[in-house]
Amino acid sequence: MNDSETKPKTRSAKRRTRSGGRAANTARRGGELFKQSPWRIPVNQDPPIEPLPEEGVEAIHDGAMKILENIGIEFLNEEAQELFAKAGCRVEGSNVRMDREWVMEMVRKAPSRFTITPRNEEREIIIGDRHILFGNVSSPPNYYDLDLGKKVPGTREQCANLIKLSHYFNCIHMIGGYPVEPVDLHPSIRHLDVLFDKLTLSDKVCHAYALGKERVEDVMEMVKIAGGLSEEEFQSKPHLYTNINSTSPLKHDHPMIDGSLRMIRRGQAVFVTPFTLAGAMAPVTITGAVTLSIAEALSAIALFQHVQPGCACVIGTFTSNVDMKSGAPAFGTPEYMRATQITGQMARFYGIPMRASGVCTANVPDGQSIWETSNSLWSAVQSGTHVVYHAAGWLEGGLIACPEKFIMDCEILQMIQRYMEPEVWDASPESIALDAIKEVGSSGHYFGIQHTQDRYMSAFYEPFVSDWRNFEAWEAVGSIWTAKRANQLYQEILERFEAPPLPSDRLEALTDFVARRKSEGGAPTDF
Amino acid sequence: MNDSETKPKTRSAKRRTRSGGRAANTARRGGELFKQSPWRIPVNQDPPIEPLPEEGVEAIHDGAMKILENIGIEFLNEEAQELFAKAGCRVEGSNVRMDREWVMEMVRKAPSRFTITPRNEEREIIIGDRHILFGNVSSPPNYYDLDLGKKVPGTREQCANLIKLSHYFNCIHMIGGYPVEPVDLHPSIRHLDVLFDKLTLSDKVCHAYALGKERVEDVMEMVKIAGGLSEEEFQSKPHLYTNINSTSPLKHDHPMIDGSLRMIRRGQAVFVTPFTLAGAMAPVTITGAVTLSIAEALSAIALFQHVQPGCACVIGTFTSNVDMKSGAPAFGTPEYMRATQITGQMARFYGIPMRASGVCTANVPDGQSIWETSNSLWSAVQSGTHVVYHAAGWLEGGLIACPEKFIMDCEILQMIQRYMEPEVWDASPESIALDAIKEVGSSGHYFGIQHTQDRYMSAFYEPFVSDWRNFEAWEAVGSIWTAKRANQLYQEILERFEAPPLPSDRLEALTDFVARRKSEGGAPTDF
Repeated sequence: MNDSETKPKTRSAKRRTRSGGRAANTARRGGELFKQSPWRIPVNQDPPIEPLPEEGVEAIHDGAMKILENIGIEFLNEEAQELFAKAGCRVEGSNVRMDREWVMEMVRKAPSRFTITPRNEEREIIIGDRHILFGNVSSPPNYYDLDLGKKVPGTREQCANLIKLSHYFNCIHMIGGYPVEPVDLHPSIRHLDVLFDKLTLSDKVCHAYALGKERVEDVMEMVKIAGGLSEEEFQSKPHLYTNINSTSPLKHDHPMIDGSLRMIRRGQAVFVTPFTLAGAMAPVTITGAVTLSIAEALSAIALFQHVQPGCACVIGTFTSNVDMKSGAPAFGTPEYMRATQITGQMARFYGIPMRASGVCTANVPDGQSIWETSNSLWSAVQSGTHVVYHAAGWLEGGLIACPEKFIMDCEILQMIQRYMEPEVWDASPESIALDAIKEVGSSGHYFGIQHTQDRYMSAFYEPFVSDWRNFEAWEAVGSIWTAKRANQLYQEILERFEAPPLPSDRLEALTDFVARRKSEGGAPTDF
Repeated sequence: MNDSETKPKTRSAKRRTRSGGRAANTARRGGELFKQSPWRIPVNQDPPIEPLPEEGVEAIHDGAMKILENIGIEFLNEEAQELFAKAGCRVEGSNVRMDREWVMEMVRKAPSRFTITPRNEEREIIIGDRHILFGNVSSPPNYYDLDLGKKVPGTREQCANLIKLSHYFNCIHMIGGYPVEPVDLHPSIRHLDVLFDKLTLSDKVCHAYALGKERVEDVMEMVKIAGGLSEEEFQSKPHLYTNINSTSPLKHDHPMIDGSLRMIRRGQAVFVTPFTLAGAMAPVTITGAVTLSIAEALSAIALFQHVQPGCACVIGTFTSNVDMKSGAPAFGTPEYMRATQITGQMARFYGIPMRASGVCTANVPDGQSIWETSNSLWSAVQSGTHVVYHAAGWLEGGLIACPEKFIMDCEILQMIQRYMEPEVWDASPESIALDAIKEVGSSGHYFGIQHTQDRYMSAFYEPFVSDWRNFEAWEAVGSIWTAKRANQLYQEILERFEAPPLPSDRLEALTDFVARRKSEGGAPTDF
């Protein structure tokens, strides 16, 4: 950076100097596209918003326990049924009922904090305490970008591009499931190709889908290879995670429980996230939907703690509401926000880390998508969420992944992470700055004084897709709306993308593993 | 509404029935454009976020008091200087220094809660307690809408249209200053025409600009006439308010203090809002900028309480930061959010109601405008703000008023107000709904059951500009992005607008008053 770019100027001066636009800025910076926020494991400084009084928390807990005791949960997994039976639970066919004392004894074994360590140990994440982490959009079957201008089934190339964006942005801490489902890859080998891309294009924490034993085992093997780990090292602590959903109401399916058991038995982490849509798969009332969600989540977590005491579990929330008029799901609503906050209360009650999401109903990266996403992201902050899934790139209730939305969401995520830095509200005498106030008095301004000069470089959040030029300057460079700016940016990021280093022997071993497993036919596709 | 429109359906069913789009919905509703949220004085249920520990609050208070004691504030108003001198403050020219004991004695006289009663008493607002109110954008010199596609100086027609929108939406509680400056009206008579429009197009609480005695006196007279009030009735409680800004750093100008004194002496309310832009007119540090803001605000409030003990005052915040690269103001930033929260802590420390804003830097109603506005609105909620100015329609740092942005902001405001309704998180046995959970079990869904049928009509927030259709249905009705939908909506609202009733004698008296004052030349324009 040179002085003429960074020195504070009066408003009128700015209007002259910035007319070159972002492209000119880029050039001046000698190749660096923009200054993004640093990698950090943010500490959520805000106390959680807790809509429910203590009796409300007790009421949801009591409701969830009554569900587990009297109604039961369907576990469509014979191994799980046997494990529950041996533990003394009442198993009738697939229905499993369990006493609250046993459930709570198991739940208490779950750690309130754990780490997940990817192949780059500097990108280790801490889940728990007051940390809050963000992951990219996961699992949309479709893709949309402004150049296409339409919704299309996802491809490996689009998937890889979104992995690159996930790796590029420091505000994204972990790679979720496939950021878009690469429908051009056969389901039997899809996990091999995408995990190869994930592990070579990024060195952040990875995810495995719990969809049949081969997929989970393959992905664990690939993470082990990419990390250069022995089996003992791999099992010593979490190196990846899976996220499972119950089939609400009151059901866990076979492959998700199977995959989770395989993961926890080798020391890996499991997020359990019921999808309880109030008014559809769950009661139309928010506390009712949360009660159902808690019962479903705890039933699986209790099983996992019984099998592997102390294993790393996260309690997820995906409680939202339907559109009253149509029955279709809606996200980022006021009810969604309160459901997330209430789930936060429950997760703290059980002492288990929590997962929420960055979500919207909107179909394109427009104003609606941002108010819905902002609502959901701020409710994650307000609820004491530890992991925010789908935090960048999500559209259409999770049916579309979008690179422009990804870029726009990253601006919001960077702002949220800056918002959590205590230096913003430092109240030391140097920050309260009486000497500077006296120096400037009532007739000057603060641009040029030493107190400002010493601090302005890092005093404020610096955006990368927000355009802070005035209307005339913004007009002079083409009147570009946010989504279009995001379109330009994601393409520039992809053009300049450099994959993180991976030792050649590991790359070779990964390549060989993928080739061998493909030659063996990959994974069955009868799930 | 008929059954086929409102009965909960499965997702696939919805995709068929909603293809008629919003226009079809409108037609079915027999002329009602959409169902907007009811008028209510929201109660902010969330405890405020308080970044500063008690020592931090004390440090800012001590800093503000030291400014008032040792540096002083410039009051460019001779009457104020005389009043301060008589009160025992140290007045040297325009510089006024005041002891903290005196300041705090005066500040303690300010009520923590008051009402403002417009001509329609059902639209009375309560400022204080845990209420939060929202007002429209005020004072931009320019206007932008999608049809124009450019920024133009404001006109009376645009101003009246924005007044109509402000009246139409129940989520807007009060009319701020001119929602756009009508530059086609001569400044000498502008206040007469705009207040005539305000008082005939709306029956909500009005505002007077403190710009010379004639304007304030004229507006008070017009509010009195429109309300059919005697002078005694008018003075018995606040019926309108003014908002003044200090000229930071450390200065109050003549007309704003003059207008405020005229207002409080007749029982009306004054908001005092310094504009302390960190790094420009205030220290580059957030706590420094807030300290300056508090000193400036308290100096005026102390004067007003000295002159009229117990008069209705609000402490405003307009602390944001500059763009580090250009020195231009930025809004809705992480630093803005923390400044607002910290000002909330200070306002509670002094026991005075607080004003904040809904603001953004963006030039058009795009994604950026919404994340900046969402950040600022949520920080208002988080800070315990009582009045949120500029909450609908603001663009370009306050230089542009925009009807599409107005519509979009109203969706956010409706969601915030719904978010505050305790029924959302009701945890009674009926809401936790164990019977319904048992009834549905693990194989059904909740659409058809009685528990849902009894509640679905009002269970969830219903949007009016958000489009919750899936991509294909949204595409089938034209792939319309949010801003364009807002464009259609604001025009439909204006087409159907009906002004609230005003007794003909009062209308006649208002008309006569405006005519007389115009014939007298209106107000001087030498301010």
